Amino acid sequence: MTQSYWWQREDLCYRKGKLTYCDKDVETLADALETPLYLYSAARIKRNLTSLHDALNYNDVRHTIYYAMKANRFAPLLTYLKVTGLCGIDACSPAEVKLALSCGFSQREISYTATSMSDQDADLLAQWPDVLVNCDSISAIRKIGKRCSGRSIGLRINPARGVGYHNLSVLQYSGKKATKFGIYREHFEEALHVARECELAVNRIHFHTGCGYLNDQLYQLEEIFEAATWFTARIPELHQVNLGGGLGVPHTETDAQLDLRTWGRLVQKYFGSHHVAIEPGDYIVKDSGLLLLEIASVERKQDTLFVGVNGGFNLAIEPAFYQRPKEAVLCKQPGSTEKIETTIAGNINEALDIWAERIPFPRCEEGQRIAFLNAGGYASSMSSNHCLRGQFSEYLLIDRE
Amino acid sequence: MTQSYWWQREDLCYRKGKLTYCDKDVETLADALETPLYLYSAARIKRNLTSLHDALNYNDVRHTIYYAMKANRFAPLLTYLKVTGLCGIDACSPAEVKLALSCGFSQREISYTATSMSDQDADLLAQWPDVLVNCDSISAIRKIGKRCSGRSIGLRINPARGVGYHNLSVLQYSGKKATKFGIYREHFEEALHVARECELAVNRIHFHTGCGYLNDQLYQLEEIFEAATWFTARIPELHQVNLGGGLGVPHTETDAQLDLRTWGRLVQKYFGSHHVAIEPGDYIVKDSGLLLLEIASVERKQDTLFVGVNGGFNLAIEPAFYQRPKEAVLCKQPGSTEKIETTIAGNINEALDIWAERIPFPRCEEGQRIAFLNAGGYASSMSSNHCLRGQFSEYLLIDRE
Repeated sequence: MTQSYWWQREDLCYRKGKLTYCDKDVETLADALETPLYLYSAARIKRNLTSLHDALNYNDVRHTIYYAMKANRFAPLLTYLKVTGLCGIDACSPAEVKLALSCGFSQREISYTATSMSDQDADLLAQWPDVLVNCDSISAIRKIGKRCSGRSIGLRINPARGVGYHNLSVLQYSGKKATKFGIYREHFEEALHVARECELAVNRIHFHTGCGYLNDQLYQLEEIFEAATWFTARIPELHQVNLGGGLGVPHTETDAQLDLRTWGRLVQKYFGSHHVAIEPGDYIVKDSGLLLLEIASVERKQDTLFVGVNGGFNLAIEPAFYQRPKEAVLCKQPGSTEKIETTIAGNINEALDIWAERIPFPRCEEGQRIAFLNAGGYASSMSSNHCLRGQFSEYLLIDRE
Repeated sequence: MTQSYWWQREDLCYRKGKLTYCDKDVETLADALETPLYLYSAARIKRNLTSLHDALNYNDVRHTIYYAMKANRFAPLLTYLKVTGLCGIDACSPAEVKLALSCGFSQREISYTATSMSDQDADLLAQWPDVLVNCDSISAIRKIGKRCSGRSIGLRINPARGVGYHNLSVLQYSGKKATKFGIYREHFEEALHVARECELAVNRIHFHTGCGYLNDQLYQLEEIFEAATWFTARIPELHQVNLGGGLGVPHTETDAQLDLRTWGRLVQKYFGSHHVAIEPGDYIVKDSGLLLLEIASVERKQDTLFVGVNGGFNLAIEPAFYQRPKEAVLCKQPGSTEKIETTIAGNINEALDIWAERIPFPRCEEGQRIAFLNAGGYASSMSSNHCLRGQFSEYLLIDRE
């Protein structure tokens, strides 16, 4: 059978009727560890990082990549990233800094940008003088200044323009409505003044203005870049412009891959004379991950065919709470192209615990396994133990080079 | 000052300018354990249970209460419930059964109703012959039948009518659209037939049709009860009708307390000739809990005053994901009645991490503590370690009787 699937790629496809990831039979991997099981491909992660470096190098952008570890903090994955030497870490809490250090990263390789900085947070940051701290409020500048006079800091600014996936209001980091993130134009002079008073040297500008953008949103990104130059022009000693993350990956058949060279050209156009930092999370790990679940029941209820699986929304909350679907793929290749309208439901006693609603799906039966794609980012890292159904295994696939 | 607050009650009020809970100064309690800190009142929990018993006894309803432990599984709280003798446990996963047993409940005191039953789930249930298992699908009946021939079971049915809070579609357990829960009329005869084939005795009917209902929704509840009698009439050996949970508590100034006597009268009217079970979670624990956070920053950004606190939506996801507000109360009583439009934001790097948006709130400053009310249910139990900001303490306040 030579049926093709929109999601298939060299490292992820059916071979001899079996779903294969990184040249390995997915079901055999699942047999080795219990489901629910997350599989991550080290090779895919490295490829994504390399693509980003290539696109920026192609556009002559001097740059550093900090991986946003909140997307996935599985310690073997973090350690693998360190070993590649391809990126540092973007941390957003002191505990994330500690974990990054424990996985081998040095302080200099860690960029810290958080919100609502408490005195306790600031006390910990003071213990790591070489971590690159970006302050997202005047309050945070004062807290760092009080403890670390003489330190260099970055300022997270808010260009009051946003970009992102489906314009979901829950994902609005920046835009017409004031958000909690960053320092706005109206307060920028005051922020610089407070930094000077505290004897802090401001030499980085940071902004993050949305998540999940694809090609159609690049014009918005350009507006943001343009707005951000208002801030960068006001820092004579600017060492680095940090563009945050937000680069999206395709979730459905109709999404196209982000054109990285076009994106890199925009970066060059606005910030090519500076050292640039980027902090992707999803872009690096999301499409490297599969979540494997087992079909516990197949049963029609009224007019709806429900396929019940052995894991729920608490393991990966994007479908339930962010309206971001995860493509469901049977590990055993369907013998026919017939599709039946199917609802895939989790095992949590909550009505919203639905993986996919009324999708065309092959005929399937109890005991078969389903792989949910794009489970590498903001899945296990946001999981809860709701209903004490929070157990899962994780598996980093590392090939010999 | 004799200002009154809609949320104040005998056990929760300002005394001498300090927020007092169960006759204790809340800030002093917070000093003993770090924030984020959940405070639970054992007395309030017992009072809620007693109110339920009273309302059912008043209406001559023979009954048992099973506490839905998914609402809050803090082990001291579970053990306290066991000691009161006022309720059993509603468990929705094998791990919840284990935890209930480990906190002192016997198998007979545990009612089990889950969804998407896997073979592994059924294997575990087979080890606990006295746990009261309700099957919510024909697939589940077969799984139990295969392992536990001769056992008595309940059937979770779906009356195809729903009730609940704000008609939020994410909280739709039962209604016009087919949900994953329970056995519908169309399949009931088949379910009974399969049970007979497996030599299982069906002697309980279970349904749960929504959550958070208050007085305005009682007419919907009555429709559900009426629809459920179609099923109960078809079980000659009926030992118990289990009405599930869903009883709501006030979240805002305009919500009134559920009239339990009226509710109990409905229960009597439709099921008074049977033994009745109910499985409330929120109703028992929600208003027994406070979440204490500390103000990390107070800063105006553009036109919005942001109060940043040292905990985020990952600790209690209802405001972010279920549009259920948690009333915010300063631990130090405000010196004036002046209110300023304020947005209370958490410390997670996500745009949706907002506790309350543009609410009238007293003037406050860094270092003060805020108590979020109604934090006893579906808060800690659904918490995640997102951004490694998942640390919190819990404290069960038990008075001498």
